[in-house]
Amino acid sequence: MEKKSDQMQSSDYYFDSYAHFGIHEDMLKDRVRTLSYKNAILTNPGLFKDKIILDVGCGTGILSMFAAKAGAKKVYAVEKSSIVDYAREIVNINGFGDVITIMQGTIEEIDLPEKVDVIISEWMGYCLLYESMLPSVISARDRFLKETGTMFPNKAQIYICGIEDAEYRAKKIDFWDNVYGFSYAPIKKWALLEPLVETCPTERIITDEYMLADLDLNKCSVQDLTITSKFTLIPTDAQLLHAFITWFDVEFEGPENTITLSTSPYKKETHWAQTIFYLQNPLNADPDTPITGKFYMEPNIKNPRDQDFLLEWSNGEESASQLYKMR
Amino acid sequence: MEKKSDQMQSSDYYFDSYAHFGIHEDMLKDRVRTLSYKNAILTNPGLFKDKIILDVGCGTGILSMFAAKAGAKKVYAVEKSSIVDYAREIVNINGFGDVITIMQGTIEEIDLPEKVDVIISEWMGYCLLYESMLPSVISARDRFLKETGTMFPNKAQIYICGIEDAEYRAKKIDFWDNVYGFSYAPIKKWALLEPLVETCPTERIITDEYMLADLDLNKCSVQDLTITSKFTLIPTDAQLLHAFITWFDVEFEGPENTITLSTSPYKKETHWAQTIFYLQNPLNADPDTPITGKFYMEPNIKNPRDQDFLLEWSNGEESASQLYKMR
Repeated sequence: MEKKSDQMQSSDYYFDSYAHFGIHEDMLKDRVRTLSYKNAILTNPGLFKDKIILDVGCGTGILSMFAAKAGAKKVYAVEKSSIVDYAREIVNINGFGDVITIMQGTIEEIDLPEKVDVIISEWMGYCLLYESMLPSVISARDRFLKETGTMFPNKAQIYICGIEDAEYRAKKIDFWDNVYGFSYAPIKKWALLEPLVETCPTERIITDEYMLADLDLNKCSVQDLTITSKFTLIPTDAQLLHAFITWFDVEFEGPENTITLSTSPYKKETHWAQTIFYLQNPLNADPDTPITGKFYMEPNIKNPRDQDFLLEWSNGEESASQLYKMR
Repeated sequence: MEKKSDQMQSSDYYFDSYAHFGIHEDMLKDRVRTLSYKNAILTNPGLFKDKIILDVGCGTGILSMFAAKAGAKKVYAVEKSSIVDYAREIVNINGFGDVITIMQGTIEEIDLPEKVDVIISEWMGYCLLYESMLPSVISARDRFLKETGTMFPNKAQIYICGIEDAEYRAKKIDFWDNVYGFSYAPIKKWALLEPLVETCPTERIITDEYMLADLDLNKCSVQDLTITSKFTLIPTDAQLLHAFITWFDVEFEGPENTITLSTSPYKKETHWAQTIFYLQNPLNADPDTPITGKFYMEPNIKNPRDQDFLLEWSNGEESASQLYKMR
């Protein structure tokens, strides 16, 4: 059974999770997400009017309909999951049946009759790269995007900062010390290994922020998605640093307008929240002493949709490192 | 892929969902749930002291440890999912390694060296029977429970009432009428087919309640888990009835003490919440006119862990019926 389940995770499992409308409802109701795409597309008609568009992983077809509304000549909308049957109906009901061509399959197994001017896709996962849909979008770029064409969004950045988080750590990590009178130490150890996806109130942030990665989506390769970066963080307060958090921005740089979709803790909440990496032992943070470290992130070898992380940090006196696995 | 995924749902998929600690964290942190079991077990030492216990689907082993603490001579704790490796460690760390025997497998494929005095299990799903773990517990009862033994809990009831729910219905159902300017009518139709699991504030309730099923878990057969019941509801207000909701109670009738674990909207919230069945068209409810109806619930033939429902209702003037599928 183990084996079968492992195989599932890498393909069927993944697409299956997009077969139900519930996940699309959550994404559509993330107004920061959906309105960023809507505004980016509708305020850049120069990019869409009379153009050929490819939508990778179209889901219910919302981005394709934005593109059609912006005047696209043709939109190829590719989706593997069975939600595609609904996308087809929705596109027809809304009168875009002639413009939008829905195609069921993975982008790798699909072929297009022509090259495209713009690739739109909402491929971002937690901490930008969890779920690893981006390699598929890159392969679509390399196969189908005209030389004059662009990805949309076309830029992506990952950021890190440090937080004080005693209260929430107690609820999520130290909870396992005493579960109705019993020790759940093995689960505590496991819980420390897994980054959490949670919205972080800004009052918990106790350092400045550092950009770990800056991807040009029109140029980057799949190899560039293994992120390796040093970082330096300046504490703003003398406090205990319980965790590092990461988040991402993506940018839509169009001919008429630039829109940034940010999942920063300083911006409006999104369903991506932030990604929290708890330290086994909190670190003393002091405004006089920069915290230095290294951040590694790469797809898990066994299941490339998962991500493995290694974080190293030092405040000059204490140094430590920790592995994390995002499953 | 469709086929493979269907096969998965009926076995591997299901157990796989219990492999991660997150689902156990949610269940353990449901204090109504876990404290009901704890109190039921610890305040009925007559049922546990020096007795042989079977825990079906032990998860992290919490119920087995309660039973051991209550003086059980031996606890057989059976679990299929890979969380069982953690259960074993936890049980050992807490000093119950001699009393609790952890066994990995489905209850159907496991054999026990002796009959047991009590079967403890937390098998309840949404609307009591979603997930359909109860048939496995019943088969364990028929194979392993002494004639003098008991299931714990030993009783279960399902209830129904009517609610006014214009505001939430708008957010969940009518939302699909206009999604960023587009009609999502096909998804609306689908959304109406699926019962929702949500906590229902009591101020929305506009009828009395009716008991649809009353199961004696020491006696009932798997056939009894196809629920067929007429119901009569007396409206307390003249309002529009937008939905029926259902919930369940289970009872632990012990020699020393009886504990009821209730998921009623009038009681403290649990992770089971209530199950909401929206009517395609709201029904006029009036205190002078009882609402009569029928409630059918049965496991889906293709995937018995899912449940199919048929509800019929009438206020004397208007009658309607609707199918629902809980996936």
